[in-house]
Amino acid sequence: MTTDALSDSPLKIGSHTLTSRLLVGTGRYDTMEQMRDSLDASGTECVTVAVRRERLYDRTGQNILDFIDSDRYILLPNTAGCYTTADAVRAAKLGREILRTLGNPGSDWVKLEVLGDSKTLLPDPVETVAACEQLAADGFSVLCYTSDCPVTAQRLKKVGAAAVMPAGSPIGSGAGILNPANLQIILEYLKEDDEDYPVIIDAGVGTASDVSVAMELGADGVLLNTAIAHAREPVRMAHAMRMAVDAGRHAALAGRIPKRLYGTASSPQEGVIS
Amino acid sequence: MTTDALSDSPLKIGSHTLTSRLLVGTGRYDTMEQMRDSLDASGTECVTVAVRRERLYDRTGQNILDFIDSDRYILLPNTAGCYTTADAVRAAKLGREILRTLGNPGSDWVKLEVLGDSKTLLPDPVETVAACEQLAADGFSVLCYTSDCPVTAQRLKKVGAAAVMPAGSPIGSGAGILNPANLQIILEYLKEDDEDYPVIIDAGVGTASDVSVAMELGADGVLLNTAIAHAREPVRMAHAMRMAVDAGRHAALAGRIPKRLYGTASSPQEGVIS
Amino acid sequence: MTTDALSDSPLKIGSHTLTSRLLVGTGRYDTMEQMRDSLDASGTECVTVAVRRERLYDRTGQNILDFIDSDRYILLPNTAGCYTTADAVRAAKLGREILRTLGNPGSDWVKLEVLGDSKTLLPDPVETVAACEQLAADGFSVLCYTSDCPVTAQRLKKVGAAAVMPAGSPIGSGAGILNPANLQIILEYLKEDDEDYPVIIDAGVGTASDVSVAMELGADGVLLNTAIAHAREPVRMAHAMRMAVDAGRHAALAGRIPKRLYGTASSPQEGVIS
Amino acid sequence: MTTDALSDSPLKIGSHTLTSRLLVGTGRYDTMEQMRDSLDASGTECVTVAVRRERLYDRTGQNILDFIDSDRYILLPNTAGCYTTADAVRAAKLGREILRTLGNPGSDWVKLEVLGDSKTLLPDPVETVAACEQLAADGFSVLCYTSDCPVTAQRLKKVGAAAVMPAGSPIGSGAGILNPANLQIILEYLKEDDEDYPVIIDAGVGTASDVSVAMELGADGVLLNTAIAHAREPVRMAHAMRMAVDAGRHAALAGRIPKRLYGTASSPQEGVIS
Repeated sequence: MTTDALSDSPLKIGSHTLTSRLLVGTGRYDTMEQMRDSLDASGTECVTVAVRRERLYDRTGQNILDFIDSDRYILLPNTAGCYTTADAVRAAKLGREILRTLGNPGSDWVKLEVLGDSKTLLPDPVETVAACEQLAADGFSVLCYTSDCPVTAQRLKKVGAAAVMPAGSPIGSGAGILNPANLQIILEYLKEDDEDYPVIIDAGVGTASDVSVAMELGADGVLLNTAIAHAREPVRMAHAMRMAVDAGRHAALAGRIPKRLYGTASSPQEGVIS
Repeated sequence: MTTDALSDSPLKIGSHTLTSRLLVGTGRYDTMEQMRDSLDASGTECVTVAVRRERLYDRTGQNILDFIDSDRYILLPNTAGCYTTADAVRAAKLGREILRTLGNPGSDWVKLEVLGDSKTLLPDPVETVAACEQLAADGFSVLCYTSDCPVTAQRLKKVGAAAVMPAGSPIGSGAGILNPANLQIILEYLKEDDEDYPVIIDAGVGTASDVSVAMELGADGVLLNTAIAHAREPVRMAHAMRMAVDAGRHAALAGRIPKRLYGTASSPQEGVIS
Repeated sequence: MTTDALSDSPLKIGSHTLTSRLLVGTGRYDTMEQMRDSLDASGTECVTVAVRRERLYDRTGQNILDFIDSDRYILLPNTAGCYTTADAVRAAKLGREILRTLGNPGSDWVKLEVLGDSKTLLPDPVETVAACEQLAADGFSVLCYTSDCPVTAQRLKKVGAAAVMPAGSPIGSGAGILNPANLQIILEYLKEDDEDYPVIIDAGVGTASDVSVAMELGADGVLLNTAIAHAREPVRMAHAMRMAVDAGRHAALAGRIPKRLYGTASSPQEGVIS
Repeated sequence: MTTDALSDSPLKIGSHTLTSRLLVGTGRYDTMEQMRDSLDASGTECVTVAVRRERLYDRTGQNILDFIDSDRYILLPNTAGCYTTADAVRAAKLGREILRTLGNPGSDWVKLEVLGDSKTLLPDPVETVAACEQLAADGFSVLCYTSDCPVTAQRLKKVGAAAVMPAGSPIGSGAGILNPANLQIILEYLKEDDEDYPVIIDAGVGTASDVSVAMELGADGVLLNTAIAHAREPVRMAHAMRMAVDAGRHAALAGRIPKRLYGTASSPQEGVIS
């Protein structure tokens, strides 16, 4: 019975099926070994990498791909560091080529980021919509990073995004979910005609409860990086995030009690002491 | 290495040692079977029961203790439904007698609740302090339910409470942690000269993220009941709470990143597309 | 001295100078008389009107402009109800023509709204940027309604908006300022090279404290409508909003004390009772 | 009509009637002159003073009472700096004697503070209840400073407090209203059988919007000190607070619109562009 109660469907995005609803980045770790152990502790099946030739190598000349077991993890190439439609489209195509060469199944999808400026790293809605449309037309499964603007989210779905990934707050800010109301509207909009359409909260997570909050709102998954990589103990935080995505997912499915100004007794109150 | 990274010390309260930091109530379930399965899914080792003779039986005549495996769970008798010092002290002593008769190890401790009124079920600080002092003097390990008032919390420790258990919000409200600042002050006060002094958030939890937030603040554990018992799927919510207490605990130990207005790139930004 | 202490500069937008920093809408009132009295109580000098021929008349055939004293109030025509760049540009030009015919000084500016959908009335960033650019090129002073997205706000300033007007929350929601962090970033962005560049919070205000919060963040003004028009007592709420904009403005200028977990005594603590 | 719409009843506490609902402290100003000008700008009619002989004089030997026009302001003596029932009762009686000698009408009331510790300056519920009971029995109109604990607030009313004054947050913290839910319950409790029973938010205010929020919750007034005295421009902040209490009061009386996830159009949406 317990088994039934806890059944869950996997997350499907494009041609990929994920059991873990936590997607993690690979940047900002002190060492490749720390990254590898953190990925392991996170329970993720999908890691995102800035797939450009020069970025696959760290300063000591090690290739990041040597530390990511391709039998265990699906690579999700991303367009980090792109500020225009043209740049993002080019980065996506180069990533696809490199992964095809490697025979990696991640070559058919991309995490699209088109940033508005280098200081806040907030996404640019106009360029993002244009790039998403081009990449979708070119056959990519586009997982599209965006702000929490519901109208932009809706446009991205309309131009062909395989998944919409609104930010909880700015990349690396650790501020968590700043505007749950906007995320609620996005979920309402995008799932209106297809409740399985994937919405993944990407960016801004600071700690475990932020992940649970995102999942409790009804998100299908969470993508994060800095919150693990820059924690004092990355491996332990990766474990915490793994637990948090599971906690939030099942809390959402379980149907929480309503919030009230005050409640009612949890132990029977009518008894007389014997 | 992963094993080391995730090591944790158990929670010690009086003579009892708990590995799970989730304590759960036994009231408000539809059936005894549902309660039993939820306790199982929660991973708890400590369940609190209103130990009065007439309360041990439900309307169909079943004894709640028949559904709580005493080899697996430590019983924590409570004084639910008491509104005066005298009533609470009497209930605690009767509970002790009953558990002694049963040879149950829970006979040496008590969860003390002295409520201010039957509508909001908020604790009465004056009566609570008086009852705590009497019970501690009588040899009880008192786990003392209280409001989030830091001065009352400090008084309770001073009169001998084995653990202080501030409410996140009113019992059964599902409102979560309404005043994290007060809990921070309580933790600062009570752990000043003894970082292991147990502070457990008791009451008000609505969903998994509330539990994580409590643990991330530095609480040693969480006690809850309605959030599981009245969820649409209690067993699934019990599982979510189990994950959440673990997520929050490890997030607290892992050392989260600071919150900022905006952050910095998680992927290296300096690269040029090859 | 008091007079000096409370000095303030007026708000300049395009060719217009406003002493009151509260801008109000004219829709949704029960009667024209109620609207007129509410405008009076609000202390505003600038009222926004959907200037289309058919909208200037209510169901009883009264013309809204007969209830707005043009010697006292500057009219700010708006493009409410437009969903595309083309529609918004056309509405703006028609408004300009009508006001020119009337000899009204409001003919040189426009409040631009281009909405994403009719259910949430959220602004469409792509269409809004395009319309703003066209109208600014056509000589309009464009006061541009937008979401709280900092990148879009920056784009709007770049394409020539005379003022950027981010929403606190969806039109008519009464939800207040949902994401103060985004507004802080917008203010930082847009005032970086010109601290007088006008940023006005438009939409979402529910009650007086929302207005004060907006001004305390550093906004130059607030535009609202439903919060007054649909209050139980619109005239009284208009007065409250007038006070609130003043309270928030002076609080911002006065330099508030920092927030702390706990503070320090406000009365001297060292005294001994005599 | 405007006049009628904005009518308000005065605030009655014991034998005193106040038109301004802002009560202010007199501590922590740089100079007596700054204090005097700030009191003037705040519009208050009631100022609270730690009436002990040695405290009435500042380091330059000036008497604070020479800077408070007793024809304009009602003095409210307070027991600041007391940590026990006995101390607080003694301070109240000494204050009464001094004010009687001066023929000051403030001699029949007292602001009671009994603090729990000198670091956080949080009130001690047990000592406060005891002191309030003694002073009320001795004929004082007791305005009683307390935490936001609803049960303590109820007890204070029961033992005879003329007004209950819950803290929004710790004295001098500037943290504002940390737990609006508790204040709502206090207001519900204390006004159940007498809607005019005065509840005044005392302590924690940081800026103007905090005052408005307190009044919008239904408080009858706000007492503050540090937020004005330690602002960069105290006189300007005093003005802001005067506006804020008025804004919040009228917003509460005006009946705000409900909060919604998204609202409805404020301009008519059905129109066709003519």
